[in-house]
Amino acid sequence: MRSVTISREFGSGGRELGKHLARLLGYDYYDREIITAIAEQNGLNEGYVEMALEKWDWQAMPLTFGRSFAGINGMQQMQTNLLVVQKRVVEGIAKTGKDCVIVGRNADVLLADKEPFRIFVCASMDAKVRRCMERAPEGEDISRKETEQNIRRIDKSRAKTREILGGGKWGEANAYHLIVNTEGWDMEELASAVAGFVLRWYGR
Amino acid sequence: MRSVTISREFGSGGRELGKHLARLLGYDYYDREIITAIAEQNGLNEGYVEMALEKWDWQAMPLTFGRSFAGINGMQQMQTNLLVVQKRVVEGIAKTGKDCVIVGRNADVLLADKEPFRIFVCASMDAKVRRCMERAPEGEDISRKETEQNIRRIDKSRAKTREILGGGKWGEANAYHLIVNTEGWDMEELASAVAGFVLRWYGR
Repeated sequence: MRSVTISREFGSGGRELGKHLARLLGYDYYDREIITAIAEQNGLNEGYVEMALEKWDWQAMPLTFGRSFAGINGMQQMQTNLLVVQKRVVEGIAKTGKDCVIVGRNADVLLADKEPFRIFVCASMDAKVRRCMERAPEGEDISRKETEQNIRRIDKSRAKTREILGGGKWGEANAYHLIVNTEGWDMEELASAVAGFVLRWYGR
Repeated sequence: MRSVTISREFGSGGRELGKHLARLLGYDYYDREIITAIAEQNGLNEGYVEMALEKWDWQAMPLTFGRSFAGINGMQQMQTNLLVVQKRVVEGIAKTGKDCVIVGRNADVLLADKEPFRIFVCASMDAKVRRCMERAPEGEDISRKETEQNIRRIDKSRAKTREILGGGKWGEANAYHLIVNTEGWDMEELASAVAGFVLRWYGR
């Protein structure tokens, strides 16, 4: 099985890149589908699952999965459970044996034994803020400053989740095969360049 | 002018990648040629120039090019001068107007106004140590531990030099267009993949 995982800074366009990449490679694509599966398996609302997995206040939690969960309240217990379910869902994707692109969910850490091609997607803060503001829902009037704060907060949470799951440092060169900066690229062009990279990796 | 700059962790194979890349793209290649030019222009020995530019004890130096160099001793004055000469040599390469690949020398910072395609090359410490030990001169018996210490020391110096020259943080995702991990790659294959990237970037 050939798998490509995409970790990304919020607002960098990693999801768009991943979709183009999956189409170009003819691989299955997973992103929100994972959230949907977790929600279904637990009789939970998708929005709740997403919030619990993305917006956890990691500050309040011990940084390792220790033997004891004393002191972790109900919400945190639920979140820990969701991480376990998420792991099972991602492993289920791998079990289909079909080539795939997975965006987010620390899939590179969860599927480490499958040796996925690990991509990290970044962009300058300016580019990310621009992208987020362009894509804000009609009528949602978020300032530049708030947008930047959101980006930092979400990325901090992503880095913490990765740390908890035991992955290499989030966004650090050596934790990935390839880091691409989306700034200045047409996303389809970039996806073609990345696809060339992936095909060479698997063809070597 | 199309230019590609390669910053690299010591032992990651950035130079080898750069050579293949220049050949594949048909671009001029610069690396040690810059040291040679600096040495010639200053009537200095190449080994001395290299040592002064790579192995500076940056700890002992103020971190900005301030107005006053009080307290900087003769050696440091020489090193500062060499950085200025280096800048002139690198700018001279750009003035030829010919497409080029430049390895090291913080060329991406020095040529920022030419908007080069900035690549950073990395590998795991294990892979770098292996590479260095394989390439150690016959009879030079350096231990694994010493090799690792050398790598860390040289990379620390490279990061500091970049900081002094005012570049983005060395090795940090957002400071580059592309970060490639050489581990597991045949270097020619990797160079082909990177060449595809560069050509798409300049063709966009």
